[in-house]
Amino acid sequence: MDKSRLQEWKDKRAHRKRSLNHDDLFSGIRSGDLIALSGAITLLESSKPEDQEIAKHLITSCLPFSGNAIRVGITGVPGVGKSTFIESFGQYILAQNKKLAVLAIDPSSEKSGGSILGDKTRMQNLSQAANTFIRPSPAGKSLGGVARKTRESIILCEAAGFDYVLIETVGVGQSETAVQSMVDFFLLLMLAGAGDELQGIKRGIMEMADAIVITKADGENKLNAQKASVQYRNALHLFPANASGWQPQVLTSSALENQNLDKIYQVIASFENQTKINDYFKTKRQDQDRYWLHETITDFLVSNFYNNQKIKSHLTKLEQDIKQGKTTSFAAADVLLDIYFSKK
Amino acid sequence: MDKSRLQEWKDKRAHRKRSLNHDDLFSGIRSGDLIALSGAITLLESSKPEDQEIAKHLITSCLPFSGNAIRVGITGVPGVGKSTFIESFGQYILAQNKKLAVLAIDPSSEKSGGSILGDKTRMQNLSQAANTFIRPSPAGKSLGGVARKTRESIILCEAAGFDYVLIETVGVGQSETAVQSMVDFFLLLMLAGAGDELQGIKRGIMEMADAIVITKADGENKLNAQKASVQYRNALHLFPANASGWQPQVLTSSALENQNLDKIYQVIASFENQTKINDYFKTKRQDQDRYWLHETITDFLVSNFYNNQKIKSHLTKLEQDIKQGKTTSFAAADVLLDIYFSKK
Repeated sequence: MDKSRLQEWKDKRAHRKRSLNHDDLFSGIRSGDLIALSGAITLLESSKPEDQEIAKHLITSCLPFSGNAIRVGITGVPGVGKSTFIESFGQYILAQNKKLAVLAIDPSSEKSGGSILGDKTRMQNLSQAANTFIRPSPAGKSLGGVARKTRESIILCEAAGFDYVLIETVGVGQSETAVQSMVDFFLLLMLAGAGDELQGIKRGIMEMADAIVITKADGENKLNAQKASVQYRNALHLFPANASGWQPQVLTSSALENQNLDKIYQVIASFENQTKINDYFKTKRQDQDRYWLHETITDFLVSNFYNNQKIKSHLTKLEQDIKQGKTTSFAAADVLLDIYFSKK
Repeated sequence: MDKSRLQEWKDKRAHRKRSLNHDDLFSGIRSGDLIALSGAITLLESSKPEDQEIAKHLITSCLPFSGNAIRVGITGVPGVGKSTFIESFGQYILAQNKKLAVLAIDPSSEKSGGSILGDKTRMQNLSQAANTFIRPSPAGKSLGGVARKTRESIILCEAAGFDYVLIETVGVGQSETAVQSMVDFFLLLMLAGAGDELQGIKRGIMEMADAIVITKADGENKLNAQKASVQYRNALHLFPANASGWQPQVLTSSALENQNLDKIYQVIASFENQTKINDYFKTKRQDQDRYWLHETITDFLVSNFYNNQKIKSHLTKLEQDIKQGKTTSFAAADVLLDIYFSKK
C-alpha cells in the first residue's frame, strides 16, 4: 500500500468514525444533511449496543426540533398502485415547496427478502429529486421493533427539516394499527370494483381511513372508479364519526394522468387545519405518545414471558390440553403465570 | 330457640353447605337445576379463595359437557331497544324448543350502580318463562375479569343443557371485542336514520357484525328502517369478506310486531350450518381459546407491572416528560422496564 492510498484509507476511517459521533451527526441532521440523517437511522436500526447508545442520545437531542411535519400513512393491498401513487403524489408535494420524507413499515420484509421501497427504481423520479428522503422499511421480526424504528426515524427526519412525512405500509396485516398510531392522517388506496381485489384488505382498516382514494381512475376504468367512489362515500356516511369530527373523504385518482393530486393534497391540508383548530391534532399526538409508551411496555413484558424457558416447555402441553377440552384458557393461564412468577 | 327452630336452622346450614359442595353443584348443573347453576356462577364471581377453588374445580368438571350451544353476541347503543329485542327474540327461541341462557357483559356496571339485565322487569315475560336462565353482568372493574366470569358462565350454562346463549353488551366500548371473542355469531342492533343516533356506536364494531338488525321497524319508522337496511346492505358489500366466508346480513325488525324474528333465527342457523361445513365454526372457537389464554396472561403481566409501587412513583413524572418533549415514549418505557426488572 503506497503512502497516498494509506492516507486515503486513514481519512476514510477517520471520516467514518467522525460520522458516527453524536455531535457531528446531530449538527449534520440539523443542517439537513442526508448522509448524516441516513447514518443516524442506520445507527438506530443497528443491534450493536454502542450504536444504540448514540442513537438514543441523538433522538433525545432531536426531539425538541421534531413534530413540525404532517405525518401521513398510506396503505393498500399489493397491486393497488402504492408506489406509483407515492411517486406522483410525492412530486406534487415537492412542487408545493415541501421537503418530503418517505418511510415504510413492513415487518415481513425480512422474510420476503426485500422490503417495500427497497427497490427505489419503482420511484425513479422521486428518489432522484432534491428535498426528498426515501428510506426502506427497517428489517425486523417483531412489529413493535419495526414500528419503534420507524417512529424514531420520523423524529430524526423532522429534526432534519422534512415537513411532509409519508409512511407506507401494506394493507394486509397488523402494521396498519401501528402506522395509524404514528400518523396524523390515514390514507387508504383502493381499487374500483368491489370484487376479489378487496379481499386482501383486512377488516377494520376501512374504518381507520381519513380518506379513501380509488386508484387507476383512467381509461376504461374511469367510470368504474367514479361509481366506486360514490358507493364508498355513501358507505362511509353510515359509519360512526371519527373522534376528530372529520368526515372521511373519498376521491379518485390517476397516477398516470396526475389526476386529483391537488385535491388529495387539499383534503389533507383541510384535515390538518380543522383538527388543529379543534385541538384534535395535538390530542391525537399525545394519545399516540401514551399508546407507544404502554405498547412498548406490554410488548416487552409479553415477549419476556414467552421467551422464558420454563414457559416454553409448559406452553405446548397446556395448549394441547385446552384443545382437547381438558382445561380452560383461564386455568392454563393461571398455571403459566404461577410458574413464571414463582422463581424466575 | 326451641328444638324445632334449631333443627330448621341446622338443616338450612347443612343445606347451604351442601349446595356449595362441588359434587352436589355439579350434579345439580348436569340435571339442569337452575338453583345449582346460579349458585355455581355466584361462586365463580366471588372473590373468596375457597369459593374460587370450588368454582375452578366445577368448571373443569363441566368442560367436557360444554360447547354444544350456539353463542350469539348482541350489541347496540342504549336506546336501540336491546332488552325489548331480547325479550321477543328470546321467546321465539324458546318456541323452537331451545333452552335459552341470557348473559351480559358490562364492565361499567359497578360504576353505573346497576348492570344491564339487572332489572329483570325489562324482560318480564322472558324472565318468567321455563327453560330460561337470565343472569346480569358480573360486577368488576377490569374488562378482563368480567369477560372471564362471563366466559366461564357459558361453560356452566352449556353443561346445564342450555343450547342457545345470548350475550348482551353495550355498543360503546371495549367490551365488544371481548364478546366477539367468545361468541360464534355477532349481532348488531341499529336504529334507522344515519344521524346522531349512530354517533354512540364505536368505530370498528360495524365490521365485527355477522348481521345487522335495524330495530323499531314499525309504524312511521317502517319505511326509514327499510331504507336504512338497503343502505347498510350496500355498505357491507363493500367491506372485505369475513374469514368465515360469510356475507353479513341486514334485516329489519319490530319487537312490537314480532316481525322477522323467524328470519333472524334462520340467518343465525344458516351461519351455524355454513361455518360448520367449512370448519370455520370450530377454527374460530379454537382461535378464541388461544385468544383468551394469551389475553389473560397479558392482562395479568400488565396489571402486575402498573401496580408495582416503584413504577407508580416514576410513571407520572415520565409521562410529564414525554408531554413536554423531554423524552420519547420508547426511552421512557426503557427506563420503567429497567426499574421493574432490576429488583422487584
